[in-house]
Amino acid sequence: MDIDRLIKKVSGEICCTREGYTCNRRCARAIEAKAVQCPPEGVDTELAAMIDHTLLKPDATYDQIETLCEEAVTYGFASVCVNPGYCKFAYELLKGSCVAVCTVIGFPLGSTTAMAKAFEVRDAIANGASEVDMVMNIGALKSGEYEYVMRDMESVVDAAAGQALVKVIIETGLLTNEEKIRACLIAKRAGADFVKTSTGFGHGGATVEDVALMRKTVGSSMGVKASGGIRDVAAARSMVAAGANRIGASAGVKIVTEKK
Amino acid sequence: MDIDRLIKKVSGEICCTREGYTCNRRCARAIEAKAVQCPPEGVDTELAAMIDHTLLKPDATYDQIETLCEEAVTYGFASVCVNPGYCKFAYELLKGSCVAVCTVIGFPLGSTTAMAKAFEVRDAIANGASEVDMVMNIGALKSGEYEYVMRDMESVVDAAAGQALVKVIIETGLLTNEEKIRACLIAKRAGADFVKTSTGFGHGGATVEDVALMRKTVGSSMGVKASGGIRDVAAARSMVAAGANRIGASAGVKIVTEKK
Repeated sequence: MDIDRLIKKVSGEICCTREGYTCNRRCARAIEAKAVQCPPEGVDTELAAMIDHTLLKPDATYDQIETLCEEAVTYGFASVCVNPGYCKFAYELLKGSCVAVCTVIGFPLGSTTAMAKAFEVRDAIANGASEVDMVMNIGALKSGEYEYVMRDMESVVDAAAGQALVKVIIETGLLTNEEKIRACLIAKRAGADFVKTSTGFGHGGATVEDVALMRKTVGSSMGVKASGGIRDVAAARSMVAAGANRIGASAGVKIVTEKK
Repeated sequence: MDIDRLIKKVSGEICCTREGYTCNRRCARAIEAKAVQCPPEGVDTELAAMIDHTLLKPDATYDQIETLCEEAVTYGFASVCVNPGYCKFAYELLKGSCVAVCTVIGFPLGSTTAMAKAFEVRDAIANGASEVDMVMNIGALKSGEYEYVMRDMESVVDAAAGQALVKVIIETGLLTNEEKIRACLIAKRAGADFVKTSTGFGHGGATVEDVALMRKTVGSSMGVKASGGIRDVAAARSMVAAGANRIGASAGVKIVTEKK
């Protein structure tokens, strides 16, 4: 590799204007027209309506997010779940459709401050998000700081101010059963709308046992979202049977079009 | 497992006061006294002074962070690198020592908004951080949105306002060589103090080749931090030989006490 030449080439291409912080990328088009189309034949529409169609990889591009949004409209998914930096772009694409924009807060470690999480929520809502999946402060729970864990969740619930559904990711793969129950009860008391199993980033995914335990713990007045490693229709249905009413998956299209 | 009994037990233990959002945990003691102690015999003090002693696991507890801070003082590390939620705690412990508090911004995905990253920086500085390691917007770089990538970095540099060193994590494991060079040049133009190889979260770590490329690209006026997978003294020294002047590692104690 001729590094000097490469540096020179790349260097000349950087533009240096300084107007605002919004990405210049414009949505090629809104997908409104598709909002009233029927989904392709054979699609499990009931299951589709429970799926958060998810793309959270750090190197996801605008083109990939656009495809995600188109698929969500085509198949009738509940939402697209994208990183905060893509909320505005997804919102513009999905305007007029029935698909919500869902984003993630304090993700995937959950170890930012309560104030930062609250800011992220307000920022996300301003950018069009109507659902926020926050990661609880796992280290604080492990340290026995339950009041802090609750205040951290409350700061997100307060910031959402009824304008966005709040789902609390407890990251089951890092918790004992007692900790899972405790986290769910705290989330319920903090006023969250859903508890959610996993971030899908390196600490295991949803299990039928965890979903059943979470449903049993929170009762019928909260949602339970199963996420992480759900890659086929059998897995998705077993989660629903165990008590999940929302599924987070990047394999949504495969799941709802699979032959039974 | 008797779920009902467990739910009942755990439920009764949650306290529900609502005063502020700060963790109740108080620092057992500051570690000031140790600040003037000499490090144990045989420690490579020159290498130690280059190490950011790192613990970023989502389930890290207060006790583990306290140990991290004690070790940093004992061995003379440059900083402790902790998640934002632990900045204040680490700052209180390290007051009066020579060890800086370093934290991470938009970590580890880099896909939050420029505004959220800027807020996180101000919040971290208010909590005692004097070094911030931000993850650049990788998806925007992959999409060719170089101006946005620069503005995202500038928002962090502006928020740091000279009160904190800014290191830009480019996540080499996800980039081509051309993208690595481009990211380094953008970081330099945005006014960052360091470029840094990796988050250490799932996308590979530092390599000698990448560190050499980054050093060659940014020249001598910026820092280069090698991080991710550096677990022994041989690896640390090869990074320094390739041009790194800061090392991020969770194995700092092992690295500086290893027999040569």
